[in-house]
Amino acid sequence: MSLNDVIEGTREAVQSDPANAAVSFSVGHALKAGTATVVEVNVRDHSFSVDEPAALGGTDTAANPVEYALAALGSCQVITYQFWAAKLGIPLESVKVTVDGDLDLHGFFGFADTRPGFTDVRLNVELTGPAGAERYEELKRQVDEHCPVLDLFRNPTPTKTSLG
Amino acid sequence: MSLNDVIEGTREAVQSDPANAAVSFSVGHALKAGTATVVEVNVRDHSFSVDEPAALGGTDTAANPVEYALAALGSCQVITYQFWAAKLGIPLESVKVTVDGDLDLHGFFGFADTRPGFTDVRLNVELTGPAGAERYEELKRQVDEHCPVLDLFRNPTPTKTSLG
Repeated sequence: MSLNDVIEGTREAVQSDPANAAVSFSVGHALKAGTATVVEVNVRDHSFSVDEPAALGGTDTAANPVEYALAALGSCQVITYQFWAAKLGIPLESVKVTVDGDLDLHGFFGFADTRPGFTDVRLNVELTGPAGAERYEELKRQVDEHCPVLDLFRNPTPTKTSLG
Repeated sequence: MSLNDVIEGTREAVQSDPANAAVSFSVGHALKAGTATVVEVNVRDHSFSVDEPAALGGTDTAANPVEYALAALGSCQVITYQFWAAKLGIPLESVKVTVDGDLDLHGFFGFADTRPGFTDVRLNVELTGPAGAERYEELKRQVDEHCPVLDLFRNPTPTKTSLG
């Protein structure tokens, strides 16, 4: 199914009932040892590992949580570029995204009252294709407005935590 | 190296020079085909795949970006529980975390002016260990204050995007 078929199919589904646009995702996580963690994507049959480098107490067997957060952003941009290029009819031959994020470890370790999360994130996109530069600028504007994980980075998301 | 050694080593390093607390992470992403994307964690030697389920135009070969975002949060909680249990001297035998997130696809597809990101995220933590319940409640308070990816979810992060 082409991305345009997916876009049109989804448009029809949500026009017939807006509740069809409501989707949920669920992920489970269990500690293996030290900082090594196993992730199971519920419903769908995917799993992967998370770990820290030695300097952060791990055994470096996999990417760490903040790298996965940057990867969620970068891959979401890649896929949103694909969808919106299809929607806007802009030819796109390749998409590459690099994401860099800075952290101040004072926050995580509780050594100072600084935020524990990223203090600055920079994302660079390289596109190739035969259209004029202004079309890719327009594509970028639409992508940045509609990318789910960019929205997560830039805006507060209601997030409840509970023990139980 | 135990987590307490890591905590003490980091404390000494940032006391001798606060700039030692500044760390950066970098991740690269390239489109393979359709929505399938390859992620390379720069500096460290890790890579993994991202894809969408068929209903979102993909081939379901891996978790999708918003699932990776939830996994970044869940695994960051697991590891922050480990670190802060060590720091506070609270015995912890197991940590399991489940994260559920809701999205309204109107936003991603541009069918309505709703936010494209998560509208609600719920995180449940199951801990086991011999300490009293009030110690695990105190641990949860410290974890929620110091977890880098929970901070990312709950607060705006300066995030610049550029084409180049």
